[in-house]
Amino acid sequence: MNAPLKPLATTIADIGRRARSASTAMARAGTSAKDGALLAIAALVRSRRAAITQANARDVERARAAGLDAAAVDRLALSGASIEQMAAGLEQIAQLPDPIGAVSDVRPMPSGIGVGRMRVPLGVVAIIYESRPNVTIDAAGLCIKSGNSTILRGGSEAIESNRVLARLIGEGLAGAGLPAYAVQLIDTTDRAAVGLLVSMPEYVDIVVPRGGRGLIERLMRESKVPMIKHLDGVCHVYVDSDADLDMAVRIADNAKTQRYGTCNTMETLLVAQSIATRFLPAIGRIYADKNVEMRGCPETKAILHAAGIACADASDGDWRAEYLAPILSISTLPGVTEAIEHINTFGSRHTDSIVTNNHATAMRFLREVDSASVMINASTRLADGYEYGLGAEVGISNDKLHARGPVGLEGLTSLKYVVFGDGELRT
Amino acid sequence: MNAPLKPLATTIADIGRRARSASTAMARAGTSAKDGALLAIAALVRSRRAAITQANARDVERARAAGLDAAAVDRLALSGASIEQMAAGLEQIAQLPDPIGAVSDVRPMPSGIGVGRMRVPLGVVAIIYESRPNVTIDAAGLCIKSGNSTILRGGSEAIESNRVLARLIGEGLAGAGLPAYAVQLIDTTDRAAVGLLVSMPEYVDIVVPRGGRGLIERLMRESKVPMIKHLDGVCHVYVDSDADLDMAVRIADNAKTQRYGTCNTMETLLVAQSIATRFLPAIGRIYADKNVEMRGCPETKAILHAAGIACADASDGDWRAEYLAPILSISTLPGVTEAIEHINTFGSRHTDSIVTNNHATAMRFLREVDSASVMINASTRLADGYEYGLGAEVGISNDKLHARGPVGLEGLTSLKYVVFGDGELRT
Repeated sequence: MNAPLKPLATTIADIGRRARSASTAMARAGTSAKDGALLAIAALVRSRRAAITQANARDVERARAAGLDAAAVDRLALSGASIEQMAAGLEQIAQLPDPIGAVSDVRPMPSGIGVGRMRVPLGVVAIIYESRPNVTIDAAGLCIKSGNSTILRGGSEAIESNRVLARLIGEGLAGAGLPAYAVQLIDTTDRAAVGLLVSMPEYVDIVVPRGGRGLIERLMRESKVPMIKHLDGVCHVYVDSDADLDMAVRIADNAKTQRYGTCNTMETLLVAQSIATRFLPAIGRIYADKNVEMRGCPETKAILHAAGIACADASDGDWRAEYLAPILSISTLPGVTEAIEHINTFGSRHTDSIVTNNHATAMRFLREVDSASVMINASTRLADGYEYGLGAEVGISNDKLHARGPVGLEGLTSLKYVVFGDGELRT
Repeated sequence: MNAPLKPLATTIADIGRRARSASTAMARAGTSAKDGALLAIAALVRSRRAAITQANARDVERARAAGLDAAAVDRLALSGASIEQMAAGLEQIAQLPDPIGAVSDVRPMPSGIGVGRMRVPLGVVAIIYESRPNVTIDAAGLCIKSGNSTILRGGSEAIESNRVLARLIGEGLAGAGLPAYAVQLIDTTDRAAVGLLVSMPEYVDIVVPRGGRGLIERLMRESKVPMIKHLDGVCHVYVDSDADLDMAVRIADNAKTQRYGTCNTMETLLVAQSIATRFLPAIGRIYADKNVEMRGCPETKAILHAAGIACADASDGDWRAEYLAPILSISTLPGVTEAIEHINTFGSRHTDSIVTNNHATAMRFLREVDSASVMINASTRLADGYEYGLGAEVGISNDKLHARGPVGLEGLTSLKYVVFGDGELRT
């Protein structure tokens, strides 16, 4: 789109170098400077609403002309309310406690030294995302508060909106005495930029990809930089033989139908055989009313059919499917042992919930299900940075290392050891 | 060396599959079973000392015949005392608190759910190391206690010792009712085995390489599995203008000369210009007596020469050198600002220490030096799992993500979110 004046590799390396250099000032920045920048950006988002709206209208127009579907255009469009939400989100981040510099667990050791840990920024965080321009503001806000320098690479559809937002962020940073370069937008829609960005471990400490499976799989192959990655959400609810069935119906309904397109939506319902004939018709009627297509194991199908509820055959692929749609796979099982086995085999280690009143069963499920979030008697839809009290999230991690589950400010930080001595030596 | 009966790739994949399968039982294992296995292995190490000694003697003989240098043979050889140390090390690990299953920070959220975090094993840990056979026991012990399944790949020089030790570990595990496969040794000296091992993210959750820079750089290129990696230790001591100079002499002496070949040994000494003429001759005489070769900046050289102490010119490469030898680079600097800048530019983010009695200067150094361990008034040689109270370490990480600094039991674990509900839904 933009005819580059210098080779792309040079441009991206320049961005990396500036980001690395700004990271020192950001790591050193005090809470009041960081919060000052966040509040200044929030004020600019409000006062420049017209400029944001105009740029966004051009993005939306281009997207419509390019034939993007209604859902994609919807994700791209910024209403007055969503602009206000961006500003309010920044103000909320400013109110969160500053994680940086906190020293914890200082303990005296036999040698005489005190050993503790200090929370520090990661350094340079690159965030790669798709069409929603509000991510530009949310991600920048979290990175500023956590003392990181940030490189943003948004979707090409949102480039004009992102340009305006990035300018406001730079103004807000500079106004608060922080380097304007602490948040940089990669201002080209050339797809090669992403590959270059993730090949610079000398300038980028971590990559957070927010986007479809294709993007993430590409980055898993190409990246030389560690990633906080968010893969599928194949989430389960297991209704145990000792469940409160009314609660189970409410949870299974909410986990599937409250929103279809999110990663924490339930995609497979597991039901203990001993309560299947009582439970399945009750929840099946609700799904049928809401036009949720059910795909069941033979026993599920027989029970639903006997109750006059339509149910298709689940194929092998259904147990691993992330539908993101009004479709649900359902299986009956002897009990919690098989439920844990099913989840650890077919799930995606995202979020899984058990409904039971049996304490031992609940605790076993909690210990043995190998997922980022494991729940007792709660809807999987609650797996979310705001619902977990993290304030905001930069993504939800399926990884086991570093950050697992919703990633808020803490996931953008690291701990270093700090040692307080008085001349201690090694003997 | 061993003619393989089946292709190596199949053998390694079989090991991976068995490790993954054993990881479920290990994650579920109670503290008493894990500690029982550790104590049983310790008892076997003692009672089978003759078998260990014989196998080790064959390794040592082969190493001598192959012309390995004395230091390498020394690392390989197991004395009666070092066998006893392995057993005692396992007993110490058994006495550490079990990290697995601990639930922390459960907090009530506005929706009504309680959100906390549970410590869980990583799954399958692969450890790649060189000649010291005691690593086989130490690493297995830490992985058993942390509920992980382990694949060990030791150096080819130690293969006979490692085979005997692996057999004892398997016996101890089985005797405690745990899968013997929870710790597997790759029983081939074929170098291709390592490449295969780090290409199986489906079976291996993390790789811990303990070895030379060549091994680690090779793994950084080849590995598809996250690593806890330990690179150079280019450690600094900065003697500030407000230092107690007697303490500074003791620390600078200990940090350099207590042991030359370790990663936490000081390699560069930084000295504030205002105290250089008083401090450098005092420490320089000690180094000269101990035959430590000094390589200084022009000012350092002039001061040392004036005191009759030999000092060579430091070249640019010296500021990045990990000597692991009685050699030290020395630079004078205006003050703490330049010291922090020097360390963050030339250091390896391992361990750096300031000697000062000025609180503000000390705290600034602590905050701004971007290393895994940052110390005030202590010898860098104290950066160590035992000295930090971790009980034992599987390595020291230069990485910022997941584990930073000495990696003990906690570094072999992850945290998952646990949610305690009573029918809560997303609204």
